[in-house]
Amino acid sequence: MSERPLILVTNDDGYHAPGIKALTEVALEFGDVIKIAPDKPQSGMGHAITINSTLRMEKMPVDGDYEGYQCTGTPVDCVKIALDVILDRAPDLILSGINHGSNASINVIYSGTMSAALEGYIEGIPSLGFSLLDHSLEANFEASKHYVREMIALVLSKDKLNFCLNVNIPRLPLEMIKGIRFCRQAHAKWVEEFDQRQDPSGKDYYWLTGHFQPYEEHAEDTDLYALQKGYVSVVPVSYDLTHHDILNKIKEWKA
Amino acid sequence: MSERPLILVTNDDGYHAPGIKALTEVALEFGDVIKIAPDKPQSGMGHAITINSTLRMEKMPVDGDYEGYQCTGTPVDCVKIALDVILDRAPDLILSGINHGSNASINVIYSGTMSAALEGYIEGIPSLGFSLLDHSLEANFEASKHYVREMIALVLSKDKLNFCLNVNIPRLPLEMIKGIRFCRQAHAKWVEEFDQRQDPSGKDYYWLTGHFQPYEEHAEDTDLYALQKGYVSVVPVSYDLTHHDILNKIKEWKA
Repeated sequence: MSERPLILVTNDDGYHAPGIKALTEVALEFGDVIKIAPDKPQSGMGHAITINSTLRMEKMPVDGDYEGYQCTGTPVDCVKIALDVILDRAPDLILSGINHGSNASINVIYSGTMSAALEGYIEGIPSLGFSLLDHSLEANFEASKHYVREMIALVLSKDKLNFCLNVNIPRLPLEMIKGIRFCRQAHAKWVEEFDQRQDPSGKDYYWLTGHFQPYEEHAEDTDLYALQKGYVSVVPVSYDLTHHDILNKIKEWKA
Repeated sequence: MSERPLILVTNDDGYHAPGIKALTEVALEFGDVIKIAPDKPQSGMGHAITINSTLRMEKMPVDGDYEGYQCTGTPVDCVKIALDVILDRAPDLILSGINHGSNASINVIYSGTMSAALEGYIEGIPSLGFSLLDHSLEANFEASKHYVREMIALVLSKDKLNFCLNVNIPRLPLEMIKGIRFCRQAHAKWVEEFDQRQDPSGKDYYWLTGHFQPYEEHAEDTDLYALQKGYVSVVPVSYDLTHHDILNKIKEWKA
């Protein structure tokens, strides 16, 4: 068996997205790589899993020294099926992305990329989700690859500490990025503006659109602030959703 | 305009599920009700939203004094489209459920029911998700209705405090339920066991199955413990996923 770390690579933009190609290239510098990704774009799938229908999985021809699988499920399904069906042992690291677009702040909740990483963390495997603040399919991942490399090296150099890190990379050339900042998730929300249209038969349908509403633009310890100042933001993510402050308040309620 | 509270009711089991019927009945005792739910079961959809395709929404005939809408989207889509398209003002309360099956512990992450409630909270609206620990479509919701009533009355009696509460109800007759406990989310995970089958043409497909693995069965402040002891568990849920303990540790890393 190889002495190299075993690295599982996944994403939510789909098997053929440029972002996962870039991520796989960097992962191969560090370890043995298994790639599994949805067979179609699964952005905005959050932590969805497939329980009312079946999954298909297909081994793919690859252009390098790794194994590749395409799956009909969500990003979280991909991680689950890889761990249970494909792999003989738990991977040393799970990498998700590189996402085409930001997963900073409240985006983490809707993100298939980050949910895949979070699922790895739930399974006890250190997991990193990477996102570049550029939605374009022609996005330039060179600076991202530099910081993916830096983060993987950093994480592999540490003693076993389990975590899920949400890494967002500003859309800047490498020489303009100022470094890495460890942050908390900024408070923000999406303000919905549904675009109502009519189909050719006159029936209404809707596109979900909206704009991003930050709540604390001057809070220096947040991911949004770091990104705005030209840093790569790194936020550790939890799957314990308990709101302890509110718990302390409502404990006083007489139920 | 009515003086009664405006209550938005939703779920993830679909518009025609018995659980949302029970929830709507209790909601009508307290306020004016708008019901919106997915047109098909959306269990396990987590915080998924529909961004690569369109949504349809249909006003439904109803059997009582409320408005009903069916939507082709996810539970989170339902909340978003109700707030933006249907309602003239923000509701005073969002109720999600009553889910057919537990959303305690780690289930909160996969749950469409709880993600709908969480979306309400993100929008600044007090939101309650209710789940009965019984998957059956013939589940008896009488005891659940009692505790839904108690929780709504409790929440409406409080000064404006924004929160999202994950309320789970044991599968017991009313007289055997011991009351309400405010708890934290228990640590646990699902252990996957994919069921691999072959279709008639010999190609593999998979069903996601698994068993629930609790990690701290004796921790008395958790939701699982409360439920096991015959209490209704109430866990306040956060959308700030920052893992502050890990953040404090990794801040020491030299990046």
